[in-house]
Amino acid sequence: MTISTTAIVSSKASIGSNVSIGDFTIILDNVVIGDNVSIQSHCLIGQPTSLSDGTPLVIGNDSLVRSHSIFYEGSQFGSALMTGHRVTVREKIEAGDNLQIGTLCDLQGHAKIGNYVRFHSSVHIGQKSIIDDFVRIYPYSVLTNDPHPPSNLVLGVKVNKYAIIATMCCILPGVQIGEKALIGACSLVKSDVEPETVVAGVPAKYICRASDIKLKDGSNQPAYPWMRHFHRGYPKEITDEWMSIYDT
Amino acid sequence: MTISTTAIVSSKASIGSNVSIGDFTIILDNVVIGDNVSIQSHCLIGQPTSLSDGTPLVIGNDSLVRSHSIFYEGSQFGSALMTGHRVTVREKIEAGDNLQIGTLCDLQGHAKIGNYVRFHSSVHIGQKSIIDDFVRIYPYSVLTNDPHPPSNLVLGVKVNKYAIIATMCCILPGVQIGEKALIGACSLVKSDVEPETVVAGVPAKYICRASDIKLKDGSNQPAYPWMRHFHRGYPKEITDEWMSIYDT
Amino acid sequence: MTISTTAIVSSKASIGSNVSIGDFTIILDNVVIGDNVSIQSHCLIGQPTSLSDGTPLVIGNDSLVRSHSIFYEGSQFGSALMTGHRVTVREKIEAGDNLQIGTLCDLQGHAKIGNYVRFHSSVHIGQKSIIDDFVRIYPYSVLTNDPHPPSNLVLGVKVNKYAIIATMCCILPGVQIGEKALIGACSLVKSDVEPETVVAGVPAKYICRASDIKLKDGSNQPAYPWMRHFHRGYPKEITDEWMSIYDT
Repeated sequence: MTISTTAIVSSKASIGSNVSIGDFTIILDNVVIGDNVSIQSHCLIGQPTSLSDGTPLVIGNDSLVRSHSIFYEGSQFGSALMTGHRVTVREKIEAGDNLQIGTLCDLQGHAKIGNYVRFHSSVHIGQKSIIDDFVRIYPYSVLTNDPHPPSNLVLGVKVNKYAIIATMCCILPGVQIGEKALIGACSLVKSDVEPETVVAGVPAKYICRASDIKLKDGSNQPAYPWMRHFHRGYPKEITDEWMSIYDT
Repeated sequence: MTISTTAIVSSKASIGSNVSIGDFTIILDNVVIGDNVSIQSHCLIGQPTSLSDGTPLVIGNDSLVRSHSIFYEGSQFGSALMTGHRVTVREKIEAGDNLQIGTLCDLQGHAKIGNYVRFHSSVHIGQKSIIDDFVRIYPYSVLTNDPHPPSNLVLGVKVNKYAIIATMCCILPGVQIGEKALIGACSLVKSDVEPETVVAGVPAKYICRASDIKLKDGSNQPAYPWMRHFHRGYPKEITDEWMSIYDT
Repeated sequence: MTISTTAIVSSKASIGSNVSIGDFTIILDNVVIGDNVSIQSHCLIGQPTSLSDGTPLVIGNDSLVRSHSIFYEGSQFGSALMTGHRVTVREKIEAGDNLQIGTLCDLQGHAKIGNYVRFHSSVHIGQKSIIDDFVRIYPYSVLTNDPHPPSNLVLGVKVNKYAIIATMCCILPGVQIGEKALIGACSLVKSDVEPETVVAGVPAKYICRASDIKLKDGSNQPAYPWMRHFHRGYPKEITDEWMSIYDT
């Protein structure tokens, strides 16, 4: 356990074994941190809020929280959470294992997130979002939730397994993105997207089947489903399964 | 008064009664903080700039500045300012009461902001913007000011009372947004917008009267003007007035 | 040399003369800082990464790094680097002199950047980007690099001299932006852009020659090439050369 002498760690926080806490980081009361977790410098962990119902912030084993990040109390993360710098994560998120949250992401809380989800930099996740396993969302994309702002309705976006949302997309409230779908860059998605299809544009329209897109590596292989060829960052037991499905 | 022992507070700063200042926060010389103000951790308050003409940063009574925020000297905020985390606020802003500035907002200074204005997360306000009372601007929207970048012209955007700018909009220099207008998500607004109308698209075009949009709550009531049905966060004397106008 | 007593500065770091280091800032081992450099508060400088090949972070003479910024080891910056607040700069960037990086920019590393380049706030630069001298990129614009995300291909964007990318543009992987071109606000650029042309839209299409755009200052002079009329922030020897070329 290496806790910086300049860190401020509440004696009420539950800290696992082999935890590292960086300089000028604050760990508040209502926090449960697992084993082998590293929290870098200048973070604020466990910010209180009346919206948490008193539940703690739970960060699972083997996690890495990079510098200048802020987590509220009241959210639960499985093992191997990995964040970029200066992420902001609010209350009432239930997330699985191996979530990656990129630099400058803003998670507004009250959301469900599966396993092996990856948010690149500057992704904004509105309340009531539901994001299934293996989804990947690219920079400056937003999941919204208010159908006619401002209102008292909160209609979350649902993103199904293996779907990809490229850079700078806006998904309107209540939209469902089908499994293995691809949302092209700079799209405004106003209605549900069928599985394994590509939509793009403002507003987004059907472009083609996902499997119609070819890899630009000269192989002429389909670029989607991406699990056929992209394995970086996923464990062998998962990529072995993908390889058996796609016979690569 | 609870000032953290790790905070660095200039003896030249004017600090009201019942003020709380968080860990690792820096309050510099040219700052006037009202009563009952809370400034959270890791903030930098009163950053000097030659553009301030020596005027102080003034933060009114009953304000809350969340962690990792940066305020320059030379701007004035009324009472009950509330910020999210890591906002950046530069010099020469004159703001009314009850301004809310969401997480990651970037206010470039030299702007006028009315009462009860709300910026959600990651809103970018260019210099010379004028934003009237009760305006609401949603994530990743930008008010620009340079008509042919880079140039020496600064043509601010004017947003009139009760107007709504939804997520990921870009308002071009010198544009006026009419009272109670709605700018749909992902719009590029190149010309003035009439009051009580809806525009959307790239570039934005007239869609309908604002009152033509119906609430998606089954009531079939008009969603705009929004003051008819949305009262959260506004005081009773204001919502009572709205209710008398709209006879709800 | 004025190093704050609350800063944490590695004895292994190489620090030039007349350097100022702000409160709560951390300077790690593998860092070379030139003379007359100011690094403000709450920064993290020299973050280690296995991707740096052990090369240091080099910040040239006469540089200013504003508060809450993060620099990794393994990037090299010439003299007179100037950053806004909370920039994030990763490894393997080779940058020239007089680079300006605005508040909240996110530079993902592995990029080449020329002299006198300016990124305004919230610009996102993907890996393998090549950005030539005097380029200017405006808020919320993104240079991407993955042609069919996620994949193992990294096709960087190339932006040539004097080109301007306006607010909220997305440049797709492998695209080349020609010298003195202008990308209008809110554009999705899918294919190469000819020199001295204007493109705009989603997807971007040819609009006109850059020189067809007139200044909105009543002069009726062409707004591009911008070097004809915009000199702020550039040294006299450069603007004198521009004036001799454009005979202004």
